[in-house]
Amino acid sequence: MSEVHAARRSRLRARHASTGPETALVSRPANVRYLAGPAPAGAVLLVGESGDDILFGHWDPAGAPEVPRPAGDSGLRGVALDGHVDPVVAAAAQAERAGVAALAVEEHHLTVARHRAVATEFPRLRLTDLGCAVEQQRLVKDEDEIAALRSAAEITDRALGELLESILVGRTERHLALELERRLVDHGADGPAFPTSVATGSHSGVAGHRPTDRRVEEGDFLTVRLGARYRGYRCQIGRTFVIGTSPATWQIELYEVVFAAQRAARETLAPGAEYRAVDLAAREVLTAAGHGAALGPGTGHGVGLEIGEDPQLAPAATGRLGPCVPVTVEPGVHLPGRGGVRIDDTLVVRSAADGGPELLTITTKELLAL
Amino acid sequence: MSEVHAARRSRLRARHASTGPETALVSRPANVRYLAGPAPAGAVLLVGESGDDILFGHWDPAGAPEVPRPAGDSGLRGVALDGHVDPVVAAAAQAERAGVAALAVEEHHLTVARHRAVATEFPRLRLTDLGCAVEQQRLVKDEDEIAALRSAAEITDRALGELLESILVGRTERHLALELERRLVDHGADGPAFPTSVATGSHSGVAGHRPTDRRVEEGDFLTVRLGARYRGYRCQIGRTFVIGTSPATWQIELYEVVFAAQRAARETLAPGAEYRAVDLAAREVLTAAGHGAALGPGTGHGVGLEIGEDPQLAPAATGRLGPCVPVTVEPGVHLPGRGGVRIDDTLVVRSAADGGPELLTITTKELLAL
Repeated sequence: MSEVHAARRSRLRARHASTGPETALVSRPANVRYLAGPAPAGAVLLVGESGDDILFGHWDPAGAPEVPRPAGDSGLRGVALDGHVDPVVAAAAQAERAGVAALAVEEHHLTVARHRAVATEFPRLRLTDLGCAVEQQRLVKDEDEIAALRSAAEITDRALGELLESILVGRTERHLALELERRLVDHGADGPAFPTSVATGSHSGVAGHRPTDRRVEEGDFLTVRLGARYRGYRCQIGRTFVIGTSPATWQIELYEVVFAAQRAARETLAPGAEYRAVDLAAREVLTAAGHGAALGPGTGHGVGLEIGEDPQLAPAATGRLGPCVPVTVEPGVHLPGRGGVRIDDTLVVRSAADGGPELLTITTKELLAL
Repeated sequence: MSEVHAARRSRLRARHASTGPETALVSRPANVRYLAGPAPAGAVLLVGESGDDILFGHWDPAGAPEVPRPAGDSGLRGVALDGHVDPVVAAAAQAERAGVAALAVEEHHLTVARHRAVATEFPRLRLTDLGCAVEQQRLVKDEDEIAALRSAAEITDRALGELLESILVGRTERHLALELERRLVDHGADGPAFPTSVATGSHSGVAGHRPTDRRVEEGDFLTVRLGARYRGYRCQIGRTFVIGTSPATWQIELYEVVFAAQRAARETLAPGAEYRAVDLAAREVLTAAGHGAALGPGTGHGVGLEIGEDPQLAPAATGRLGPCVPVTVEPGVHLPGRGGVRIDDTLVVRSAADGGPELLTITTKELLAL
């Protein structure tokens, strides 16, 4: 893997070539992991002009075995710091010693206080803004990353499938969520990609519902949203089921309209499609059915090392999808006091010549009565 | 509870009285929760000069039932924002409209980019630094907070006690960690206070060990570190056991020295004790036994709404403990290739007249052979 990370750092350096000589100080955790592999919490990465890159972090003196310190292979070495040293300050000190002209920091991640500490301690360093250069680079995934997402989705589908085979009535949202998370790990996940949401009855369809002690009852809608984290990569699936043998008419109708909205949005996924067009496709179907007021701010988002990364598929988003960009498509409607429906998939944008969007989360989207 | 939060905001305002007229913009999540109660992710709080406080956040349009929007009782109202509006910008806009003289922001939490966005959009607002005023206020806990920590510790002891009654040999670190987290929730926790660490054999005693697929074997040291989160409050316990009937001599000796170090540090806990003196008490015992080089950066830390809050009990820390400050005492030693011992307690500093330090995590610290 270390060659993959070296190649990613080279691409970041190639950007520097167009901005003038610049050393980058990368502090946002997912960006550090993208460019350097697993690192201790809080580690920061100095990407030099020449390819001599350094990771500064707090490795446990006893050595946590799962995070080895880079030894200099592939142009990356690790510097272990004492507990009280801020890695950002250590990296800036190194940059000053090396006489770099400009140090580009992640102003969208660095706090005002840390930025000021560096500016005060190293007045000769000219601090510039790296902006979201690494996030932009992370947007399009390579095949290694897509393979990790595919594995994450397989694990997720398996955990969900097992849950559907068990008895659900009478169990609480909390227990179902914990069981799903245990099954994710059983099947090889590093852990959940985000807190698992299980919502039943009047809670169903609420976007960020946190599981409560409410028990599953006959006639409920049951919304489940989960994802595995695998080698750092996070996917997302959401499904809504009905408990009991015969769904009510309003449940069938609501499910059908959300399903139609989700399918409409999925069908727009193609290289060149505007982010907002994906959202609009779902939004139009739901608005036409009278659910426009209840909609959330967006219909989906990128996934990768973070669960809510760019692009945002929302009305105000500007930009166009490219190939090999994985996104969620996840419209939903909640009717206060009654419940609602969410259907979330993770897909990878592919051209028609490559077979169109690749669906990673393959659990059925038929309305299952459990 | 809303009166408790109102009283906390009044204390923050009292600080302002000494700094001149100032409105505070609180953005750090634990600080927002401390001053306003549960709020949606990313919500920020404007604490005015007069007591008309406003929480800005993204409440789900369908209304996540567990986080109600404040209606104006106790001087706090909630303003629900559209999905794309940054709550920091919304709060700054309100401050400018209200004609505030100075807006004190949390420079240690706000990013450079958000700070600049506010400065650019509202040039008439004078931005100052609130610093760690709220964190300082959070250091000493009121009895409501200590009661929540006490409940968190009871839940944690119960989950750990149940695990000790089960068969451990042959089970993986990952499964034991998941089972502990499930038991925490079974007993009423909101969730784990931090990722549960289970370390066996050569992993035992590693500070931040993440559970692996290694199975518990006869003769192993087994280090378990967990905590419940209850009403937002987080406690921590760590214990080390030996698997099998007869511990080896090196295990008994290592356990005894870590136990002696932990007791020495606990015995220093009193109002007026220097932070560094607590650390030193443990460090001296371990250094005298030849384990000085393997020690981590500190011996404990405050707990509350966050797991690693102030004070830090470390060699370079300055300050003195006060009454009603809950801290962990958690020395540990790891011998590479062999394993190690960690013993963590959560205690509340109390004066001798009040009975001395209150031990919240009461699971025995005898070396149990399981």
